[in-house]
Amino acid sequence: MSQLSNEEIFNLIHLAMDFKSGKIRSNNSDKFAMNLFFEDSTRTNTSFQVAEAKLGMKQIDFDARHSSVNKGESLYDTIKTVESMGVNLAVIRHKQDKFYEELLGKNLKIHLINAGDGTGQHPSQSLLDLMTIYERFGYFEGLKVGIIGDLKHSRVAHSDAEALTNLGAEVNFGGLKEWYSDEFKAIGPHMNVDELCQEMDIVMLLRVQHERLADNENKEFSKESYFKEFGIDMRRVEMMKADTMIMHPAPINRGVEIADDVVECNKSYIFKQMENGVYMRMAMIETLLGVKQFDNDPDQEREFVLR
Amino acid sequence: MSQLSNEEIFNLIHLAMDFKSGKIRSNNSDKFAMNLFFEDSTRTNTSFQVAEAKLGMKQIDFDARHSSVNKGESLYDTIKTVESMGVNLAVIRHKQDKFYEELLGKNLKIHLINAGDGTGQHPSQSLLDLMTIYERFGYFEGLKVGIIGDLKHSRVAHSDAEALTNLGAEVNFGGLKEWYSDEFKAIGPHMNVDELCQEMDIVMLLRVQHERLADNENKEFSKESYFKEFGIDMRRVEMMKADTMIMHPAPINRGVEIADDVVECNKSYIFKQMENGVYMRMAMIETLLGVKQFDNDPDQEREFVLR
Amino acid sequence: MSQLSNEEIFNLIHLAMDFKSGKIRSNNSDKFAMNLFFEDSTRTNTSFQVAEAKLGMKQIDFDARHSSVNKGESLYDTIKTVESMGVNLAVIRHKQDKFYEELLGKNLKIHLINAGDGTGQHPSQSLLDLMTIYERFGYFEGLKVGIIGDLKHSRVAHSDAEALTNLGAEVNFGGLKEWYSDEFKAIGPHMNVDELCQEMDIVMLLRVQHERLADNENKEFSKESYFKEFGIDMRRVEMMKADTMIMHPAPINRGVEIADDVVECNKSYIFKQMENGVYMRMAMIETLLGVKQFDNDPDQEREFVLR
Repeated sequence: MSQLSNEEIFNLIHLAMDFKSGKIRSNNSDKFAMNLFFEDSTRTNTSFQVAEAKLGMKQIDFDARHSSVNKGESLYDTIKTVESMGVNLAVIRHKQDKFYEELLGKNLKIHLINAGDGTGQHPSQSLLDLMTIYERFGYFEGLKVGIIGDLKHSRVAHSDAEALTNLGAEVNFGGLKEWYSDEFKAIGPHMNVDELCQEMDIVMLLRVQHERLADNENKEFSKESYFKEFGIDMRRVEMMKADTMIMHPAPINRGVEIADDVVECNKSYIFKQMENGVYMRMAMIETLLGVKQFDNDPDQEREFVLR
Repeated sequence: MSQLSNEEIFNLIHLAMDFKSGKIRSNNSDKFAMNLFFEDSTRTNTSFQVAEAKLGMKQIDFDARHSSVNKGESLYDTIKTVESMGVNLAVIRHKQDKFYEELLGKNLKIHLINAGDGTGQHPSQSLLDLMTIYERFGYFEGLKVGIIGDLKHSRVAHSDAEALTNLGAEVNFGGLKEWYSDEFKAIGPHMNVDELCQEMDIVMLLRVQHERLADNENKEFSKESYFKEFGIDMRRVEMMKADTMIMHPAPINRGVEIADDVVECNKSYIFKQMENGVYMRMAMIETLLGVKQFDNDPDQEREFVLR
Repeated sequence: MSQLSNEEIFNLIHLAMDFKSGKIRSNNSDKFAMNLFFEDSTRTNTSFQVAEAKLGMKQIDFDARHSSVNKGESLYDTIKTVESMGVNLAVIRHKQDKFYEELLGKNLKIHLINAGDGTGQHPSQSLLDLMTIYERFGYFEGLKVGIIGDLKHSRVAHSDAEALTNLGAEVNFGGLKEWYSDEFKAIGPHMNVDELCQEMDIVMLLRVQHERLADNENKEFSKESYFKEFGIDMRRVEMMKADTMIMHPAPINRGVEIADDVVECNKSYIFKQMENGVYMRMAMIETLLGVKQFDNDPDQEREFVLR
């Protein structure tokens, strides 16, 4: 995410929106995709599968749990192997931070997408978040965003915050103070959740990872106390402005960071984010494959609105 | 099964037979199917995969064993998620009886098929059984059916017995007396296997589940003694009428409920059932997707023969 | 492999080369393939998947780890089942030597490919090796081949050696003396690795299987000592003739049987083997399916060059 310019981000958003509206289509039936998920992620995996299928690509199964990588083969040798067999795109999810560094600058022609590395980046999630905001407001400049949750272990909190800042939005944070580390202090202030609900245009929740909280200094932490202090219930929804969006990358913890009846309330864009994720992933893949000729309107000029 | 009218059953059988004969075809290449098997079932899973592919649908992989459902996500949230991503059909197999109740009356547009719930229902198996009988005889009225085996833990015994009775057949039972519970007593008598072989038009075997028999009161039970008392060997096949059918939902236990040389004898419809399963599942999916225009003969009227 | 005549081998090689060059294409979109891998093998599995997809076949998933076979169903019943459901091709990998004998001479119409049985045969690997040699030299007669590594536990060493001998090549061996069993003594001499590097046209390495070496009498064996005595490093590459090929079936152990910088050196055909594997598997499948009409040049006569 940090390497993408604002222009590249807008290009991806517009391409994704064109796929969504049906304005453009793309057929890549001679191309092969392989999703290498060394860490489970039904959601991201499913979304990439649908995106690849909608682009007409053929998919090759890869069972990461029982692959040669587990028997000591390097990731490079695995990727080089599937490249040799004719696979054009590898979508990789891996527990290890920056797993992709091993692959950069090597003799590879296969296209690569990082579908989440350790607690590092998760670009397709960040981009679908940006798309969903842009689709709703039509601009980023001046939007007030509040990100609430486990900032420290989130793959998207830092990327989203940085990209939104670069695009002109104003980012604030909420949640346990110990999650609010220096990298976030450099971006925006910490506020309490009631204030965030009253003032923000976008309330972006993060999943609270119970397994990671076990190690936490805060021993008294419970789901119930988290919900009371930081969770979004209908009382807090009613504090929000008329056009405030509630977002969440999912999977959601009902009754922890969000109340049951908020999930599908009219301010919630949670399932819209999932819908948009497919189109954003199509845009990412299409951009990588470098297919330039679309079915209609091949000469169109895209406008990049930076209001 | 219990909600289907006789007319709906006949509609499905005729549609399945039309798919089998090649009379109709259907192309759903813009539709996505996902098979969510939270319990292993190679047979049913494979059959649905072939059915979906023959209908032109695109399939999205789902690894139930490592899905978010195992990490506490509700089935509803999982289904809502894949619906948001554009999946049109979810075929679900689950250990829990009536898992689908959680999904009914909710805000879902995705089509759902129960591919087997706990010891509850298994509608696609029941329907393919009915299709195979109808294909052979052309009617149900007056047919004598003997169901032999673990009635209590079977997903199909009760559904099949009820549907066959409603369709005019006469259903009898065989096997261990302790399996012959009240719900079956209300449908038909218990007979010994020699009698059933002599009198029935259809001898329908059920799989004997060793793992479930371990808990059984009948401690002296062994495979050998089961085979001797209830199993179908060639001696019993020779007692049967000329046109009697032998059926089994599989997987079969050779040498327990059926002898090796009976499996592919000329009275056995076991592999025919598997073949028909694909076409019945096509009919179920097609009916759900509501595609009305077939490649040929769009205006045909179907006849529902209730002889 | 041992049942294939030289003519059949040449037919497969030429067909594979025609698929590779794009001279012929084949569409089998009405055919279903199932890959049943009861033993993990990412490489072979992926290669067959790509081959099937390039032939237009539809693929049905099979999760061998959780199949009914593990619950005691015979391989025959499983294969008969998927045949009944309309699957046309089963590609099977199995731990058990000669697993396929259970399937021969039975009532099966489905096509079968052995994708590796125990320490038995691995015909698609042997054939892609032969293709890669033939593609490079244009003949086999008189070629000097040195096979270095764990001959005893390799699925390809004996098949390759036998086929190459039948095709007129001269086969020699290297590696630990205890691996050089009587079946190899009957084919060719054992030489030290420096000699092999100086004299061979083809240096064919085998994977050293650490898990199998544990049981070895040679207790002092270490990766380091293996590499020093039998491994190929740049010093040994420089001893080779200008047009010598280095081959390896992969996965490779960098620093054990081959040095890091040799893997992609200009004498290495390792990734070319993987590329060719897809086309050879297409040729095998196409030959089995018996499709005779190709898109172009249907009346061509193939030449079988036995120089």
